[in-house]
Amino acid sequence: MSAASDVYKRQCKVVFVVGDFTTTIGDPTGKNKARPEISREKIESNMKTYLEQVGKILLTDEKSFSWVPNSDWFTSVTDINLPADSKIGFQVVHDGVKITTPVDPNTIVGKAIVFENTRKQVSEQTSVLRRQISVVTLTSFLWTLRHITHAQLIKRDMFQDRLAKNEDLYMHEMMYPVLQGIDSSVITTLYGSCDMEIGGTDQTFNMLMGRQIQEINKINYETAGVSSDLQAVVTMDILSGTDGVEKMSKSLDNYISIADEANDMYGKVLSIPDALIVQYFRLCTYMPMAEIEEVARDLEHGAKNPKDIKMRLAREIVAMYHGQEKALMAEAAFTNTFKHGEVPHDAAEVVITAGEKLIDVLLREHVVPSKTEFRRLIKEGAISVVETAEKIDTPDFVITKSANFRIGKRRFIKIVLK
Amino acid sequence: MSAASDVYKRQCKVVFVVGDFTTTIGDPTGKNKARPEISREKIESNMKTYLEQVGKILLTDEKSFSWVPNSDWFTSVTDINLPADSKIGFQVVHDGVKITTPVDPNTIVGKAIVFENTRKQVSEQTSVLRRQISVVTLTSFLWTLRHITHAQLIKRDMFQDRLAKNEDLYMHEMMYPVLQGIDSSVITTLYGSCDMEIGGTDQTFNMLMGRQIQEINKINYETAGVSSDLQAVVTMDILSGTDGVEKMSKSLDNYISIADEANDMYGKVLSIPDALIVQYFRLCTYMPMAEIEEVARDLEHGAKNPKDIKMRLAREIVAMYHGQEKALMAEAAFTNTFKHGEVPHDAAEVVITAGEKLIDVLLREHVVPSKTEFRRLIKEGAISVVETAEKIDTPDFVITKSANFRIGKRRFIKIVLK
Repeated sequence: MSAASDVYKRQCKVVFVVGDFTTTIGDPTGKNKARPEISREKIESNMKTYLEQVGKILLTDEKSFSWVPNSDWFTSVTDINLPADSKIGFQVVHDGVKITTPVDPNTIVGKAIVFENTRKQVSEQTSVLRRQISVVTLTSFLWTLRHITHAQLIKRDMFQDRLAKNEDLYMHEMMYPVLQGIDSSVITTLYGSCDMEIGGTDQTFNMLMGRQIQEINKINYETAGVSSDLQAVVTMDILSGTDGVEKMSKSLDNYISIADEANDMYGKVLSIPDALIVQYFRLCTYMPMAEIEEVARDLEHGAKNPKDIKMRLAREIVAMYHGQEKALMAEAAFTNTFKHGEVPHDAAEVVITAGEKLIDVLLREHVVPSKTEFRRLIKEGAISVVETAEKIDTPDFVITKSANFRIGKRRFIKIVLK
Repeated sequence: MSAASDVYKRQCKVVFVVGDFTTTIGDPTGKNKARPEISREKIESNMKTYLEQVGKILLTDEKSFSWVPNSDWFTSVTDINLPADSKIGFQVVHDGVKITTPVDPNTIVGKAIVFENTRKQVSEQTSVLRRQISVVTLTSFLWTLRHITHAQLIKRDMFQDRLAKNEDLYMHEMMYPVLQGIDSSVITTLYGSCDMEIGGTDQTFNMLMGRQIQEINKINYETAGVSSDLQAVVTMDILSGTDGVEKMSKSLDNYISIADEANDMYGKVLSIPDALIVQYFRLCTYMPMAEIEEVARDLEHGAKNPKDIKMRLAREIVAMYHGQEKALMAEAAFTNTFKHGEVPHDAAEVVITAGEKLIDVLLREHVVPSKTEFRRLIKEGAISVVETAEKIDTPDFVITKSANFRIGKRRFIKIVLK
């Protein structure tokens, strides 16, 4: 996203393509028909959360930023399935009177009315664009395929790996790069150009496919009066997660969120393995490359303590999202807690009745999300009393006196008996 | 078609699938978008001619016979491109008064109205079916592809040949068998079942794909209340053309049409190479296999003159389409002409002015279709005077006296000077 930020500062518009259609297609438990109207609601809600995060880095006004789900062009009006008793109406104005005529929901016209209305609800401004673009149909998809050879697709390393291992390669998987490439072409039509695509190094093949599909469509771009320049392709290293093993991902719970509180963010950055320090400096900060190389040399020759370098990294990152002041406060809180064994001054404090179970308190206060997670923490010896460092070793632990508890590395709770 | 005839006699319904969509996709000079409304007109007119021929073998009432173009399910409503000034109207009835409201032709609703109306025009009865079936969309096509592996498609001999020769194999070509397979699945949904698919041996791979796609869709068939039995696949040898080299094809002009006049049909059958005699008996007549084997033995051992066997073949075939009497008349006419050098009694007779050029007369009377064809015939020595057997060797030949001309093998014209 830092790269996108650089781009928008150069007066370009940033467009996020949400691959909701390609995700549905890729999902092995998929049903016969995608249900665009349902998944759209989910996308809208996901995007809302996402936009809050994006807003911390990018301007999100309409001139600088836009997002579109690719189901907008890949899903057909015919994919809409409505219950037979749906009430669909076509509104006409006659002599100044509004008349609504019912339309059979199982006809193409019925589906088309629903399709248009749904698009309208998203945003009156973008819906005009969406209603006018040439949607990708089976016909136009096959037209694209006639310009792409088997040899070209099959050479993709991922496909070659599968074949070498004698693992099944399904035909919809082979279509993936083509579908993603079409995204760039649709963005060109929708916004007048698609000058640059930014993605992870794992997307290089797909993004170059975007260039090829723009090339194929040049003649159509001329008719549509949009730019026929091929997109530049910018690839970024994939950011590793805090575990140092997998790529950063919410579902693997090895992530640092832009929306994390300053203290959490600081602590999470400190928890990364030393081997990731340079990568994080490169991908997550605006520090000049020359300085980063210096950091790398210092680490290699043991000139500096990795912990100190990580603290600088954590300060840099927290400052980007919360400002310099909060970064320094997070550092102070961390130092207090971990260097001096203190409970952070902003730890939650709850007053309970003697005899309550620890699990019930932690669940009620949302310190742990579930009993399963609680049991896992107990098993790992990750819950302890701060004052005595005594590890809690039973899930049925009952609180008999006031104490501060430490849960995992960075969660604390002050429990006071009334 | 003889095979289809056998099927319908067993109380089955014969459905001809016209591959107009797959043809458009396969056409290398294809445009970005198929234009379904235009090509539909052409199909309708082609089908009219075709149905006249089909009627000679099959019952063509709605109960026994039906035909459908596969653009009906592969073409999307979005593929319709209308001029911006098209007048599209949505008709509602309000208080017994018909009100037509104009609809923007560039919206999905506008296209849907045109789509439905076009389908309606074909046939009110079948259009109800067509409007209700699940049209094949990009989404459902990709859903089908997730059940088909690369290994399965690439093993097709045609594809293997291409790869072995290092010739380009385009991705839309790889999709072909899948598209054709989907045809069988749509027929199942449309008519309640698709029990048997009949095609040439070159279609075996594609027809088996139909079985697989029926298997994939079994769960959907249950919901739709249609048969979930997989189709039987019947393959037929490909009939060779009269040249004995290529498969029979109108465009190669090596064909015998069901609609040919008795004399033409008889003559054309006689013109086939001896090597094709047995194949024609097998594929084009109802003669029992035991008898055909006898014919084959006779030919092999030289027990009978191939010419006599061919005359029997010609009689059999002509009798099928024109009746026994006309078959015998055709034989007599042929025998007269070719055995005794006579002009057939039904040859065209024209009266002309002395000094006319032969080419002008032949073009006017439609005996030859073009000057090019005429020059080719002259060059081959294929135009002669019947009475003298003199070959015409100049394209500028001027007629100076009444004479009968023979053009090619079977065309004759009696020219009388006034």
